[in-house]
Amino acid sequence: MTLRELGERGLIERIRRRLGAPPPEVLLGIGDDAAAVAWAGRTLLLTTDTLLEGVHFRTSTATFRQIGAKAMAANLSDIAAMGGEPRWVLVALAVPAGLGVADVDELYAGMEEMAGPHGAALIGGDTSASPDRIVLALTVVGEVEGAPLTRRGARPGDAILVTGELGAAAAGLALLEGDGAGLSPQERAPLERAHRVPTPRVREGRLIRRSGVATAMIDLSDGLATDLGHIATESEVGARVSLAALPVEAATRRAAQALGRDPWRLAATGGEDYELLFTASRAEAEALAARIAGETGARVSLIGEIRPAADGVAFVDEAGRPVAVGLGFDHFAACGDPR
Amino acid sequence: MTLRELGERGLIERIRRRLGAPPPEVLLGIGDDAAAVAWAGRTLLLTTDTLLEGVHFRTSTATFRQIGAKAMAANLSDIAAMGGEPRWVLVALAVPAGLGVADVDELYAGMEEMAGPHGAALIGGDTSASPDRIVLALTVVGEVEGAPLTRRGARPGDAILVTGELGAAAAGLALLEGDGAGLSPQERAPLERAHRVPTPRVREGRLIRRSGVATAMIDLSDGLATDLGHIATESEVGARVSLAALPVEAATRRAAQALGRDPWRLAATGGEDYELLFTASRAEAEALAARIAGETGARVSLIGEIRPAADGVAFVDEAGRPVAVGLGFDHFAACGDPR
Repeated sequence: MTLRELGERGLIERIRRRLGAPPPEVLLGIGDDAAAVAWAGRTLLLTTDTLLEGVHFRTSTATFRQIGAKAMAANLSDIAAMGGEPRWVLVALAVPAGLGVADVDELYAGMEEMAGPHGAALIGGDTSASPDRIVLALTVVGEVEGAPLTRRGARPGDAILVTGELGAAAAGLALLEGDGAGLSPQERAPLERAHRVPTPRVREGRLIRRSGVATAMIDLSDGLATDLGHIATESEVGARVSLAALPVEAATRRAAQALGRDPWRLAATGGEDYELLFTASRAEAEALAARIAGETGARVSLIGEIRPAADGVAFVDEAGRPVAVGLGFDHFAACGDPR
Repeated sequence: MTLRELGERGLIERIRRRLGAPPPEVLLGIGDDAAAVAWAGRTLLLTTDTLLEGVHFRTSTATFRQIGAKAMAANLSDIAAMGGEPRWVLVALAVPAGLGVADVDELYAGMEEMAGPHGAALIGGDTSASPDRIVLALTVVGEVEGAPLTRRGARPGDAILVTGELGAAAAGLALLEGDGAGLSPQERAPLERAHRVPTPRVREGRLIRRSGVATAMIDLSDGLATDLGHIATESEVGARVSLAALPVEAATRRAAQALGRDPWRLAATGGEDYELLFTASRAEAEALAARIAGETGARVSLIGEIRPAADGVAFVDEAGRPVAVGLGFDHFAACGDPR
């Protein structure tokens, strides 16, 4: 059996089973946004991501500064998804020996600019040469006071909430790939920026966890449909999301039209939004949304409800009828393979 | 300017300067084997390394199990080099979607088998698809009681010591690359194994640090000449090493002969030994060597002396005459570049 046949979740599940129970200080092992370790009376969060040139980024559609910033944002977002605070970053960089030093400077400048405002510092790493593509592997160590907010814990009846706007990064990527030529530069710019330099919701994540009323959280890297599926699987629940409730900006809607795509499906399946998807009891949800929005300025939307596991994960139209939106990103299904 | 022109040390120095002073809790930032952070009254060690197929390993000369074990050994060795104890490992794996699941299982089996006996557990990571080569990025978090042993601290007059044997891994690599056909399988096997599955000196490193008499330490990944140069640079000293004192096994000497190479130069410049190179006051060095050897069974050799910085780093023959051995591995100098 190949990885393409097994799929990304299948592989992660297989690794988790094979490794067995982690040591007792490990509060969360494989399968959440970050691992969590109880240590010296506090809780460490550990997350790592590898980005490959040509797969996760292209130097033709983003500057080195943007590439560095986005790599950092994606990793900080994993700490945000636990309600934690990022602290220290290791950068393992493999680059062709013929690359200009100025480009590497820009890559680090982008990483620093993204990390600093969120309280994280680059403190170590590794450099080596790559014969072809740039490889950027980041590890972020963070901490959280008390228990991290995980993918488990959502209960039937809980409201489903999301920060920010959905689909902008996916629309931006489609525009950068050459589709949707009808749009003006002014219309394209914010979408392309959403794709190139996402904003990790570190402050929002901390406030959501501290509220004490949120029951589960994940960041949206692979698309709402896929990432909500992770909460459903880990919490052993189902979910119903109203497509009409998804927060989709006017610019994204215009781009979707120009691209010939349905904006709500784009919002439901487009990856790399790096917004936070979370759940809270129905009674507390509106007050929580208002508080987070008031303290951070981020939009917070109620988009659906957690249901019993038997209901599965469904997206519905305004009449309550199920709509097939498809799933988001699976790394092994999406990637070509020359072997 | 390209990275090839700047060189690996030049790049690391440039990154260190650009990032400026780390936050106050960071005891060691960029430029040692691992970063060290004072946190909650204890000291965390953080290290990361990325290994690329075709650069750091080949599936034609090692099994997936061996590749996993070696990747883990190289990272554990960085923690050993600080006198620390490895605890938790994150694995970020990018692989072609067409790779067999059984091969991935073997890779994880090799990592686990290497980590477990040294007290480290795989607790998280990331998986993604690579269009071509396998990319394996490991991060090890360790801890150390009190101050880590660093590359700084060697003083003129200190003895230079090394664990184990030198040059076996380099000889093994040369044999695997098809040279030295005159050797028997029995002669080749231990050398090939030294290249494929090195032993990280975690226990030895901890004892060396705990002795309180060692002044500096590094692990030998890029070769003795290069890595001793790192101690000299960071400690602002010179060094004199006696080639005849280098611990070179009979099998390595025979292989060097078959390869048409000088065994002492092979030992002085061959990379990936993953032995520990350390310094201690002359008066304590022999007792320390005997104690480490007695407690661990590892050979420990006195190979030279730390000198004033003005003397530089020199290798000498039995008559005390300088011998040019060349330097070890520089990632950017050694690697091809199709750009």
